[in-house]
Amino acid sequence: MTISPLQKARYEYSPKLPGMLRSGISEITVKTGAPTQSVADQEVIAKLFPNTYGEPEITFEAGEAKDVTPTKKTVGVILSGGQAPGGHNVISGLYDALKALNPENTLIGFKGGPSGLIEDDFVVFDDPFINEYRNTGGFDIIGSGRTKLETEEQFAIAAEVAKKHGIDAIVIIGGDDSNTNAAVLAEYFAAHNTGVQVIGAPKTIDGDLKNEDIETSFGFDTATKTYSELIGNIERDANSAKKYWHFIKVMGRSASHVALECALETQPNICLISEEVAAKKMSLAQIANYIADAVEKRAANGDNFGVAIIPEGVVEFVPEFSKLIAEINELLAGAKADEFNALPTWADKYAFIEKGLTPESMDVFKILPTGIQQQLFLERDPHGNVQVSLIESEKLFSALVADELARRKEAGTYTGKFSPLHHFFGYEGRCAFPSNFDADYCYSLGYNAALLIENGFNGYLSKISNLSRPAEEWVAGGMPITKMMNIERRHGEDKPVIRKALVELDGKPFKFFEANRDNWAVETAYTFPGAIQYYGPAEVCDLTTRTLALEKGE
Amino acid sequence: MTISPLQKARYEYSPKLPGMLRSGISEITVKTGAPTQSVADQEVIAKLFPNTYGEPEITFEAGEAKDVTPTKKTVGVILSGGQAPGGHNVISGLYDALKALNPENTLIGFKGGPSGLIEDDFVVFDDPFINEYRNTGGFDIIGSGRTKLETEEQFAIAAEVAKKHGIDAIVIIGGDDSNTNAAVLAEYFAAHNTGVQVIGAPKTIDGDLKNEDIETSFGFDTATKTYSELIGNIERDANSAKKYWHFIKVMGRSASHVALECALETQPNICLISEEVAAKKMSLAQIANYIADAVEKRAANGDNFGVAIIPEGVVEFVPEFSKLIAEINELLAGAKADEFNALPTWADKYAFIEKGLTPESMDVFKILPTGIQQQLFLERDPHGNVQVSLIESEKLFSALVADELARRKEAGTYTGKFSPLHHFFGYEGRCAFPSNFDADYCYSLGYNAALLIENGFNGYLSKISNLSRPAEEWVAGGMPITKMMNIERRHGEDKPVIRKALVELDGKPFKFFEANRDNWAVETAYTFPGAIQYYGPAEVCDLTTRTLALEKGE
Repeated sequence: MTISPLQKARYEYSPKLPGMLRSGISEITVKTGAPTQSVADQEVIAKLFPNTYGEPEITFEAGEAKDVTPTKKTVGVILSGGQAPGGHNVISGLYDALKALNPENTLIGFKGGPSGLIEDDFVVFDDPFINEYRNTGGFDIIGSGRTKLETEEQFAIAAEVAKKHGIDAIVIIGGDDSNTNAAVLAEYFAAHNTGVQVIGAPKTIDGDLKNEDIETSFGFDTATKTYSELIGNIERDANSAKKYWHFIKVMGRSASHVALECALETQPNICLISEEVAAKKMSLAQIANYIADAVEKRAANGDNFGVAIIPEGVVEFVPEFSKLIAEINELLAGAKADEFNALPTWADKYAFIEKGLTPESMDVFKILPTGIQQQLFLERDPHGNVQVSLIESEKLFSALVADELARRKEAGTYTGKFSPLHHFFGYEGRCAFPSNFDADYCYSLGYNAALLIENGFNGYLSKISNLSRPAEEWVAGGMPITKMMNIERRHGEDKPVIRKALVELDGKPFKFFEANRDNWAVETAYTFPGAIQYYGPAEVCDLTTRTLALEKGE
Repeated sequence: MTISPLQKARYEYSPKLPGMLRSGISEITVKTGAPTQSVADQEVIAKLFPNTYGEPEITFEAGEAKDVTPTKKTVGVILSGGQAPGGHNVISGLYDALKALNPENTLIGFKGGPSGLIEDDFVVFDDPFINEYRNTGGFDIIGSGRTKLETEEQFAIAAEVAKKHGIDAIVIIGGDDSNTNAAVLAEYFAAHNTGVQVIGAPKTIDGDLKNEDIETSFGFDTATKTYSELIGNIERDANSAKKYWHFIKVMGRSASHVALECALETQPNICLISEEVAAKKMSLAQIANYIADAVEKRAANGDNFGVAIIPEGVVEFVPEFSKLIAEINELLAGAKADEFNALPTWADKYAFIEKGLTPESMDVFKILPTGIQQQLFLERDPHGNVQVSLIESEKLFSALVADELARRKEAGTYTGKFSPLHHFFGYEGRCAFPSNFDADYCYSLGYNAALLIENGFNGYLSKISNLSRPAEEWVAGGMPITKMMNIERRHGEDKPVIRKALVELDGKPFKFFEANRDNWAVETAYTFPGAIQYYGPAEVCDLTTRTLALEKGE
């Protein structure tokens, strides 16, 4: 195996624990807070979680541990869902704390995500194994997967597997859905007296697993820093060459935290925020006009270049576009799809579409570039539905802007040049070496999870807070997952789920962006964050996100 | 202006000079070597450069400077062509050396590339101005441009502008074409007794400005490290998710140095090298088969994922494809384009094409994905020619591989899954903060250029060598640009030019790749370089490229 120089050096990095966890594993005691209740729908959720609801929040503090000669434990760990930088550190922190508690403790990793638990596909960690993954990116230590643990049958198998291995606790490292399922599994284990505990760890680069208890999900810091490195480099290129408008799509299907954080770090000319598009019920034409205004103003200053950040999911937040999609799905439902497919030419198909859509939706359809018009009708999923996720929104908007600028050129209000280029950053950031922040945060989450297990908690989320401050001041503890839940309609059913955090339009990060964006749109106010640094001055290496700093008023 | 924490920290970085330049500017003397001659076509080139041909190579060494009270000088500097990390450091090194030689010396920057000289569009540098750009990426300090300085008229204007400002020397920072033009300008200035010197500095991220005198062009190190960071991250993602084949296009139209260096740094499953494709006269089908073989073998091991690096210009190196392009250009020349464009449907157009192409070219055309077929005919440049540079070769090859795998599936030899994803990395790396290597190398090139000026050289390239060793051991000097020249046919004319360096198939970097690639194709031997580090252990921060190390036998 060839190891890069950086990887070798990162093996030696000692992640920083919260000050209160530094006094030695036998010098940590539990401070119990008040009982909790869910953020909404308390009665329903209490009834769904009779064994795990209402438990208190706890924090750890220096003091004598409950039991200085702990019994030997076996713990299982699962990586669930999309990759996020730092997953390996959650596992190494968990491993180190378990071994510190009792060298005979065992940590088992289930392979390929939750399905590994059901299929009993596992590895047993030891020092050499763990040491190869310390402070590295990726989920390749055991792989990840998207199987959801949500049925009674799965839970029963999980209980069997746990029993077979003598497992005392399972740590599930995942996003909002995975942690919701962790809570349901915890309740099942409690209700069936299995004695198995479940602890969650909050992961997602999208940043949408966030609430008053989770200041940030892990991976968001590293991923946004990686995207911001690239966006900053492109900004500098744009300002050197002075001839291209770069449309940069970033990950974020249901929330625009990634786009907003990248905008705060790089100060581009334009950044769309899906939540604002939805709140203002913006049309495609309004968005294109908004961007074209910036292009026109910059062109008037002689600046025929710029940078626009587009969140992946933004078109799904445009009400008229969602309506169009719904109509198309309806238009091609069942046998009508065959009729449509049999039409020989695109012109015939277009006539069919024109007859089938409402005039309002047809108006929207008409302004789309032909490539996207065809994509909407020709590339459908197995259920015949439009695959909205395949729509390249960065290309859609640059095409709409080009059309609008052509009109303005004709009208004589715009005389510039508009040469767009397109980029998409997603996979580039999900498996980067975790930043010092994510390396420290994740290691602490894992270490802390072992303490929650040791102290007998079930259905808790490993919680590290005060994250905008130096690690010394971080607060370690746990929070019942049920506290973060409410009831939402999902696939036609009322489900208890952790609420997905959208960008708050009255929150400080968005407000800061809003206060500055008109200036950034016209001026060239680019900021160049550069590559993530792991060594060197603390003000370069140990900063977390602008989002978190602004939320904390720093 | 908002400055990122890294940018602030980089302002403080002191680039490392070659040991021989560290003894103080008045303690450096010239060691003159033997007269030089051009690498080929000596007689012709000697005749074309009567005033600047045959000058000796020189190196600097510790000793008493020629003149300890140098006369006041004015120097102009130009950034020419595409951005490359480190351009700002060439300028800051030049500035610092000029000011060290005589605080009254003046450095002028011509704006927007060579056209700035012709249009007399300039800035005068001072300390606060230069300090804002030290160790930063981009060419935004004065901008760059692609105007070529090559006509007598331009030279005459340049001489006028130089005279107006009292300019003693011009430093041209550029690639092979720009340095060729620098030599021609130097000859013109000498022939017309202007007294103006010209010094070149070797820039290009493509790595194709390389020969026995130029060990590497600046920017190649930083750009390939940035691409390798991203490719490594994607490899780690591929190996975590285990479900995608990533086809990654990297910059490099005429040479594959970038692709090769990235492959050496990241050990992907596949890397195409255009020079090999040309040498082996590979067909599209052969290339697709080669990739499909790796996909099939990996699938047999249960690995339905992988990473393939595709150099931007590779399709132009496939002989049958070049022939097809030539036929298409012929087929649509003049009035025939109107006839073609008047055909109502793609089916009609296809019939026209089938009639017009030779059977061999039609065979090639047939296997292309429809999207690319249409692109070849519908998107032509103002002269009616196919825009080969617009062809997305990463998508072309993944489509051809998918077709081949479908055939193998039918034949029963392949039973895997193939889900390709596509990326293109180019703009992301051209304006990154220069690596320590590029920061040091560029600063040294600029500093050294001032010494060449001070010692009266004209038509010389600023040359820093022994680059695979620590900066202390670097060798500083100068080389007549004419030495690197030969005669080549360009646009129907014989021209004296610096030869573009292609990947040498018997060179050590390619040989190393060739010896390992069969293993890398099937095994998962990925290496993860991570983000460029500017601080921290020297073995992480001060390494240059694998290409250079292998070439130097290290």
